[in-house]
Amino acid sequence: MIKQIQINLPAFNRGYHLITHMVEEQLGPLPEQGLLNLFVKHTSAGLTINENADPSVRIDFETVFNKLAPENDPDYIHTMEGPDDMPAHIKSSLLGASVTIPITHGRLNLGTWQGIYFCEFRNYGGSRKVLATIYS
Amino acid sequence: MIKQIQINLPAFNRGYHLITHMVEEQLGPLPEQGLLNLFVKHTSAGLTINENADPSVRIDFETVFNKLAPENDPDYIHTMEGPDDMPAHIKSSLLGASVTIPITHGRLNLGTWQGIYFCEFRNYGGSRKVLATIYS
Amino acid sequence: MIKQIQINLPAFNRGYHLITHMVEEQLGPLPEQGLLNLFVKHTSAGLTINENADPSVRIDFETVFNKLAPENDPDYIHTMEGPDDMPAHIKSSLLGASVTIPITHGRLNLGTWQGIYFCEFRNYGGSRKVLATIYS
Repeated sequence: MIKQIQINLPAFNRGYHLITHMVEEQLGPLPEQGLLNLFVKHTSAGLTINENADPSVRIDFETVFNKLAPENDPDYIHTMEGPDDMPAHIKSSLLGASVTIPITHGRLNLGTWQGIYFCEFRNYGGSRKVLATIYS
Repeated sequence: MIKQIQINLPAFNRGYHLITHMVEEQLGPLPEQGLLNLFVKHTSAGLTINENADPSVRIDFETVFNKLAPENDPDYIHTMEGPDDMPAHIKSSLLGASVTIPITHGRLNLGTWQGIYFCEFRNYGGSRKVLATIYS
Repeated sequence: MIKQIQINLPAFNRGYHLITHMVEEQLGPLPEQGLLNLFVKHTSAGLTINENADPSVRIDFETVFNKLAPENDPDYIHTMEGPDDMPAHIKSSLLGASVTIPITHGRLNLGTWQGIYFCEFRNYGGSRKVLATIYS
């Protein structure tokens, strides 16, 4: 059985945001067993799974990914959409457009310290769409 | 229901190539609702989802990933297969061997600006195999 | 049909470890056709698919990822869990918490040179849990 739900995310600040509870709320009851695929429909945002406790991890994510895909590299040729755009595309592919999470006993089967991060790479990304597909 | 189709890609130049239409053609009619997994059967190529409009983005991908995984790093010990080989393995894992894309109303449910990139990391990679699995 | 199996991995040294055979053994007989999702339930370990032959590739993975996410960057603020912790979180998201692999004719449909890497990013990570979900 396949079920799809579009999750509309509010405009987030640039950075890494824990959205596990927001996703669970919008999905409603989950099947006993299955898989959840979350797919972000944008090329300058991403999804990843990482530590859900200390918010300092999410701040360091911003620091590190800004070094991996720096703004204003003089070698970029795709510069027309602003200095945050090309780094946003790179970050989106480094982290990926989707995550797949097992569902067990009607709940997301994440590890104790795992949460879902929504990653906003643009300075003003606006609201964003994530398509959830649940198969069971 | 599960359906698998092997997609044979022609030899591409080193770089990032938009293959959305080629994939759609080789898949034929899609189910009303489901998920598509594309899996590249090589360790020096990759798949990712990114901007489908301005080709300058794909040129900058080559620039940036060459900096993230540079050729001729004197610290590499896996050098026997040529200077483009070890960086190709790293890039393959950074971007990943597979992408999962939702199918809705019989079409790939990509965002307006999203396309599927085939990423050829070798100078002469030759033809490549991608296994498509559709479940619905 | 969905089947889930928890795979318990022994404590591995920091580094990149080929676990294809260990995974196949713990999964037992596979369906004729389907997909396998492996999901690591930790935020300082990862899974990826890469070259299964020459072990020098896995040593270079350690070298390269230590450069991409270096220890003791003075810009980190998440430092309380040791110098290997914040880089481990970054590496986990760069490589990802899960891999999806097609199953064809009752076997993992990997390319000739592909294997499954378990990536231990901590100095002393201890035993680790991977949840396998098979759908067919």
